[in-house]
Parts: sequence; structure tokens; C-alpha cells
Amino acid sequence: MTRNMEIICVGNELLIGKTLNTNAQWLSKQATALGITVKRITVVADDVNEIANAVRETLKRKPHFAITTGGLGPTFDDKTLEGIAKALNRKLAVNQKALKMVKEKYEAYAREKGTETAELTPPRIKMATLPEKAEPLPNPVGTAPGVRAALEETILIVLPGVPSEMEAIFHETVEPLLKQTSGKSVFYEKSIYADGVMESSLAPLIDKVMQDNPGVYVKSHPKGRENRPHMEIHVSITAREAEKSEEKLQKAITQLSSEIGKIGGKVVVDELG
Amino acid sequence: MTRNMEIICVGNELLIGKTLNTNAQWLSKQATALGITVKRITVVADDVNEIANAVRETLKRKPHFAITTGGLGPTFDDKTLEGIAKALNRKLAVNQKALKMVKEKYEAYAREKGTETAELTPPRIKMATLPEKAEPLPNPVGTAPGVRAALEETILIVLPGVPSEMEAIFHETVEPLLKQTSGKSVFYEKSIYADGVMESSLAPLIDKVMQDNPGVYVKSHPKGRENRPHMEIHVSITAREAEKSEEKLQKAITQLSSEIGKIGGKVVVDELG
Repeated sequence: MTRNMEIICVGNELLIGKTLNTNAQWLSKQATALGITVKRITVVADDVNEIANAVRETLKRKPHFAITTGGLGPTFDDKTLEGIAKALNRKLAVNQKALKMVKEKYEAYAREKGTETAELTPPRIKMATLPEKAEPLPNPVGTAPGVRAALEETILIVLPGVPSEMEAIFHETVEPLLKQTSGKSVFYEKSIYADGVMESSLAPLIDKVMQDNPGVYVKSHPKGRENRPHMEIHVSITAREAEKSEEKLQKAITQLSSEIGKIGGKVVVDELG
Repeated sequence: MTRNMEIICVGNELLIGKTLNTNAQWLSKQATALGITVKRITVVADDVNEIANAVRETLKRKPHFAITTGGLGPTFDDKTLEGIAKALNRKLAVNQKALKMVKEKYEAYAREKGTETAELTPPRIKMATLPEKAEPLPNPVGTAPGVRAALEETILIVLPGVPSEMEAIFHETVEPLLKQTSGKSVFYEKSIYADGVMESSLAPLIDKVMQDNPGVYVKSHPKGRENRPHMEIHVSITAREAEKSEEKLQKAITQLSSEIGKIGGKVVVDELG
């Protein structure tokens, strides 16, 4: 069975339109490439109750994995761990392993710069204050550790919002974990481009190709306008067996191209590589 | 009281990481500029049950406005209206006003191009098939009308996923509606940039400035690394009175800059304009 995932992004900057949510896209792409189905992305504010509600609701849907981004830093509005603790009904406590990670970072910074002290101030200790029974994940490029908690039905992973830090922790700790537990699923995708066919005329062809090619998903993305149509048609498959999947995908694309040709459309395969 | 909004984005392409969710950012920015607080963004797949669940959950939280994007087109996987009908427990039926809009579009396309027919095929009629008691919103640049439904506590607005179409319907119909019902709230924001101060050292200053300036929200966005810090500090306010708000914002920025100077940070105001 394919594994599934939910993503929760925490941050006012995402809700006021200040920041484009590239983290959600990046994580979705990584998960999809590992054969994991992302079922939902939720964006909430830097607010303990909003975070706790979103986490509770996500866990109730029992995804295999839940990943949060944002809200792990030292400032007052970094509230993700507090929200998660509330959702899990667990206490927050200084985690010694996390504290060691944070301490070593500030010692290194102080050595390097000579101006800042390595003192473990309350905002710094905050980054090592985790929900009980959670594990810190080393942050190779920043200060705040990520967090992992194995819950009854879901592995919950908590990542920082700074993209470079999120990506580094993902690659170092999360990806191996996902690979190990998500099995051998694969995801293949390819786009073809059709000119001169309206999406409404394409609709019945897509229905037919999907019916004839079980497991293959076909979705049209209008790039021009309905009256001057340039259509991207994205064809994808998530499955267990790598080889057969590529074959299936190719078969669907061949049929689709031929059907589009029949109604006068011009097809370009792999225009964007 | 400030009005609030939730956004629901429908589309597999957002969950496989194929497409960056610029629609959510664009809508959030527009709403925020109108003094509306966006409380949550939810992204779900092209699946009737997923859409219906997300809509039901959103309506349960009783936002003043709920806007959905995506899933209004002619293909099989455009399922937003079906999902909304399910959530509202309403029947789907051809809406004559919507059908007229769609019909006129295809007549114009046929006249213009001479190759396509204006025939109202099932995929085309689908775009005019709305939940009962909903109103179509004219689409100035595309084919599928938007939809509006005034529910008990929430005004639900349904927009297409193609950005140019979503934006055009928003500006033509939705923005005037939001302005009319959201009152005279305003949102002001400004960023200052600080070099040479770690976020963990900034944390207590931000606490102090927020305490001294009620209503003003201060959030740090690390752009460098904790050991080579370049910090954007975003200062914002949402309020009823325009004039006083700008004053309050400026007062908070002046205090913040002075506090950062005291601990040796270098402040640049409005680096990005």
C-alpha cells in the first residue's frame, strides 16, 4: 500500500501573503518522488491553539507521516513545539540531547566571531525545549534542532521554516527514514503539450485514456486561454513496480497523443525536458 | 471587529509539488491589504470527499469568507463544485445564468476561430452545473464562471485555478464584495533589516517592543545564518483607524531600531523599498 503524508506549515508570513510557500512545494516534491502520497497541506498562524488544532486534526486522519515546518526559532512567536505539546497532551521539557546540540552551536559561533557569548539564554534554551518523549534531529546548517515523535499511527516530524535548514535536516535524517518505511513505491511523471485543442474538447479523450490505462492519472493544465489553447497534459503513475510503471506511462502517452491528433491537435512531447 | 477568511486550494498538482501555490499567496495578500485576517489555508486533492471534508471543516470554523481555488474546468478531475454540493448537502443542477455565460463564450470562440463548434457538450455544460442556490460570477478572461454562495455564517466564493482567471474574477466581483462587508480595516507593514545580531539575541528586544506597542506585530525572518546573521524584521498592524496605525507602526520601528543599535546591531530601514 502506498504511504501517505500531511504537511502543516506554521507562519503568519504565509497567511498575509508575504512569503510564498516554497517549503510545502519542496516537501511535496520530495515525498512524491519517494512514492508517498501527500494528502493535505495546512497553513496556520503562529498561534498555539491554531497549531494544536491543525496537528490534532491531522493526526485524527492517521497519515503515515506528518511533517510540520516553521516556528522552531528563539523568538516569542515560534510556538510550534508548544502547539504540538498541547495537541499531544504532553509536557514541554528541556531535552538534554537537544540542549547539547544548541550549546555546541553557540560555542562554535562564539569561537568563530568572538563577539557573541555562548551563554544559554532563555530564548536559546527554548529551542531545546521539546514535547516529552520526542527526539531532536540535528540541524546541519542552523541552530534549532528538528524534532521527531513516533506516535501511535503517525511519525511526526517537525522542521524549521528557514528553507536551507529544513532541506538539510530533511536530507540528513528524514529522507532515510521515509525511504526505510515507505517501501519501494515509485512515482513517474511526464508532460506532453497540445496546441489548438480546447480543454473542453480534450476532456472526453482524457476520460478514455484513463479508463484504458488503469493506475495512470492524466490532468490537463491550461496554459493559454480556452480560445487560444496551449495545454500541458501531465501524465503520472504511483506504483510498486518501477519497470512496468514506466511502460504503462508510455503506453498512456502514446494513446493520448494519437487521440489528440485525431481531433486536429498538435502534440509536442517533453517540451520542457 | 476584523473580518477573517479561510482559503481552500484544490489540485493534485499542488500536492505532488508540481505547482507552486502562488494563488494562495496572491489571495492572502489581497485579503490582508483589505484588513481581512486569513486564518487558514488548506490544500486538498481533486477528490470529491477530500474537497467536501475540507469545505465542511472550514465552514464549521465560521470564517466570514471562504475562498476556494481550482477544480472548475471541464475535465473529469474538476470536482470542486461536486465537493461543495456534498459539503452543503445541496443538489447540483444546471444554472441557467451560468449556462448563458458559458454558451456565449463558446459562441464567441467559434466565431473567432471558425474551427471549433459552439456546441454545448457535456464537459461544457459541467462548468455551468452549480450547487443549488449558488450564483455564478462572470469570468472576464476564461470560460468557467466563478461561484458565490451566501451561507448562514460565511460567504463562500469559488474561483478557478488558472491564476489569470482567478485574479480577474477576484478584481471584478470579489474585491468589491469584500470591501463592502469587511468595513474600514487597514493593514500596514514595513520591514527593517539588521546585520550582526543573532535572532536569539533579538528575541527579548522584540518581546519588549511588542509589549510597549500594543496592536503592533513584530516577526523576525532570518535571511543569513545564526552565526552570520542578516535579519529581516517585519513590523505590521491591522486596525480600524488608518492614521493612528501608521503612527503606531513608526513608533514601534523607531524603538526597535534604537534597541538593536544598543546591542551593536546595524539597522537598515526599507532596504527593499
